[in-house]
Amino acid sequence: MKIDERRFEKLLENKEYIQLREDLIQMNAIDIAEVLEEIDITTALMLFRMLPKDIAVDVFSYFPADKQKEIIACITDKELQYIVDELNFDDMIDLLEEMPANVVKKILLNSNYEERKLINQFLNYPPDSAGSLMTIEYVDLKKEMTVKESLDHIKEIGLTKETIYTCYVTDSNRKLEGLVSLRKLVVSEENEKIEDIMNEEVIFVNTHDDQETAADLFKRYGFLALPVVDKENRLTGIITVDDIMAVIDQETTEDFQKMAAMSPSEEKYLETNIFTLAKHRIIWLMVLMVSATFTGGIIRRYESVLQSTVLLASFIPMLMDTGGNSGSQSSTLVIRGLALGDIRLKDAGKVIWKEFRISIIVGLVLGAVNFLRIYYLEKVDFKIALTVSMTLVVTVMISKVIGGLLPILAKKMKIDPAIMAGPLITTIVDALSLLIYFYIASSILVL
Amino acid sequence: MKIDERRFEKLLENKEYIQLREDLIQMNAIDIAEVLEEIDITTALMLFRMLPKDIAVDVFSYFPADKQKEIIACITDKELQYIVDELNFDDMIDLLEEMPANVVKKILLNSNYEERKLINQFLNYPPDSAGSLMTIEYVDLKKEMTVKESLDHIKEIGLTKETIYTCYVTDSNRKLEGLVSLRKLVVSEENEKIEDIMNEEVIFVNTHDDQETAADLFKRYGFLALPVVDKENRLTGIITVDDIMAVIDQETTEDFQKMAAMSPSEEKYLETNIFTLAKHRIIWLMVLMVSATFTGGIIRRYESVLQSTVLLASFIPMLMDTGGNSGSQSSTLVIRGLALGDIRLKDAGKVIWKEFRISIIVGLVLGAVNFLRIYYLEKVDFKIALTVSMTLVVTVMISKVIGGLLPILAKKMKIDPAIMAGPLITTIVDALSLLIYFYIASSILVL
Repeated sequence: MKIDERRFEKLLENKEYIQLREDLIQMNAIDIAEVLEEIDITTALMLFRMLPKDIAVDVFSYFPADKQKEIIACITDKELQYIVDELNFDDMIDLLEEMPANVVKKILLNSNYEERKLINQFLNYPPDSAGSLMTIEYVDLKKEMTVKESLDHIKEIGLTKETIYTCYVTDSNRKLEGLVSLRKLVVSEENEKIEDIMNEEVIFVNTHDDQETAADLFKRYGFLALPVVDKENRLTGIITVDDIMAVIDQETTEDFQKMAAMSPSEEKYLETNIFTLAKHRIIWLMVLMVSATFTGGIIRRYESVLQSTVLLASFIPMLMDTGGNSGSQSSTLVIRGLALGDIRLKDAGKVIWKEFRISIIVGLVLGAVNFLRIYYLEKVDFKIALTVSMTLVVTVMISKVIGGLLPILAKKMKIDPAIMAGPLITTIVDALSLLIYFYIASSILVL
Repeated sequence: MKIDERRFEKLLENKEYIQLREDLIQMNAIDIAEVLEEIDITTALMLFRMLPKDIAVDVFSYFPADKQKEIIACITDKELQYIVDELNFDDMIDLLEEMPANVVKKILLNSNYEERKLINQFLNYPPDSAGSLMTIEYVDLKKEMTVKESLDHIKEIGLTKETIYTCYVTDSNRKLEGLVSLRKLVVSEENEKIEDIMNEEVIFVNTHDDQETAADLFKRYGFLALPVVDKENRLTGIITVDDIMAVIDQETTEDFQKMAAMSPSEEKYLETNIFTLAKHRIIWLMVLMVSATFTGGIIRRYESVLQSTVLLASFIPMLMDTGGNSGSQSSTLVIRGLALGDIRLKDAGKVIWKEFRISIIVGLVLGAVNFLRIYYLEKVDFKIALTVSMTLVVTVMISKVIGGLLPILAKKMKIDPAIMAGPLITTIVDALSLLIYFYIASSILVL
């Protein structure tokens, strides 16, 4: 149930906290968290502490880091202990990564030696690795168990596990031997042995694999969970599909940022301070600004051509923009195709050939329209109209081929293809289109 | 198990089909489909027909449409009947949407009246609607049932259902009354009643809701499945998380396409013919090309300024590119933030204020670097260096504010914010930066 905002505000105004609590506990934990975030901290904290404990822990896990910090500062050690005990392991790791040292210390004091060892191990996985994404809450079965024993085991531990829909079968050394879905368990006969119904062809990732590798496997196979093993092939955790959806969004956001010439960042826009945002943007802008010097150099070299026909200058923006846009279109499609796996390195030839043919069509259509427009409507001199339109055709063609080629080349050289997007392509194409423009202009006009 | 390509090729060469089959059936259906796609159709078809029937159906569902067509043309009616009977309902609908009329007729002949009615209903959901995504294979419970009865029911029908992890409770009119997860069923006592353990606060979508709405709910709540109801609130199907992952990728791809000034398309790049690709690109290129005429007009209006100082022309590309890139950075972050829900309409003021402050930092840094570079390194005249650098500062500032503002304005006007990206921003910023350039140039140089 979503909240009725007006009713909520009225209850809040009249301080009808008992009714407010009743309303809140009907809601999903993430929605409760959102509501509490928007009201003043004193009331929020009071309502938070009125929630049933299990709901409170869920709600806590959905708060942003600064809210969590505020709450930890205000609650008793006993309340903190409860939260630490009940949080899913991956949420706890996320919490520890965000908290200042004194809070981390307070939390670690509330955990036992085994837990602390595990926490330290998890905190050491590289960011964006499969290890940093996983949780330890999975169901572990042995192949000698029967279906009934397994279901009883699940019944006993079940609801505290983040996922019990895929159960993993391990040997005495925690080596992964197979998996069995809860679906399979439920439809199998009670006395069947796990080893007879388990699937031995388990797809897994290593703790140090990139999270993108995991995301690709989820997409390809439609998994609900994916096991993560260490170097000795021992099962150390699982990644669940809900966490992967966040990874997919995050990886896409990074692509968007790189393609718009920014350093990638995981922080949310509104939560990032302006100096960080400025820093992420300046470097690439500076590189591209300095690169644009070449373009200036080209214009200066042909100053005499411009001097004699200043009108030529007025078409430079249109030519450069159209070239840049044509190239961006091609590079965007190829970058996205590479990211989704629809285009592979071996398709390079196909892509270039395709872009080449498209560029002929697009170039000729734009060139013709442009000629008609500037010659008949703007009454531009025939030779100049011809120069501009011919440049346009060639620019579009070159831009599209370069836009299709560069991302693939980058991938081949193990550079992120997302860098070969609009801004860089534009800078390259600008210089080329000016060279072509002045070359054609000198040939046609000097006659 | 992934395929060992060399071993596979050798087996293929030696025509060891029995061993090939053994290898194949160890693999995941999607991997089998990929292997069969890459070999010649005759062998592929033979191997396909050698697969156990249930695997064959799965493999079939992963083939691209043209491969499915080829196979349907070659197999017997009995084999087709088997595939049609066993395909998941949503895969069948996808198949029917792709096949030519004669194949559709052939398939429909193999289904009964009830099925045909349902198929027709599903084929009529608008593309990209929740209805077009859903499947009818879900577990339907009644609230009077006990946990044991429910589990027995699931055991009976279980494995043919696409998902049994969330079971839906409906009344005699198929109205949705609640849901209960398989997890809950498995950990509950056998004689508990469904109505006592079910969750009544069900979040659902309507058949005509956009698939993006469904995707947002999945991301927000971490669902594995989402129920879809019709106008009368009757349960008509469910959407599963694996299908939603494809939707997320597709929606993101559309954003990428729009942001690079292309008409969005769901077809894969390599599978789209060049005329379609050209058509998707030409319209926007043409619009932007014609808009760039304004820029030309501005240059022509200031022809006398250029004529007297042709050097000014050589900085136009750098100014325009930097402005365009600055604006693209801002608009990209805002468009993405709006798409993910991190930025909401009410944040408009915050965004503009943030972009304004960032633009001061970025503008001043770039302006200073540029001044030092062209005045000291390129030995450009002081007044010109000042003109160029001042223009740069103002251009960056205006570009960032416009880049932050336009996507939000678009969203407010119910236009897709993704259109307010690089190409359009560049065109707008080009004109503005030229106006500023010539204004400053006339003021400073004419002294």
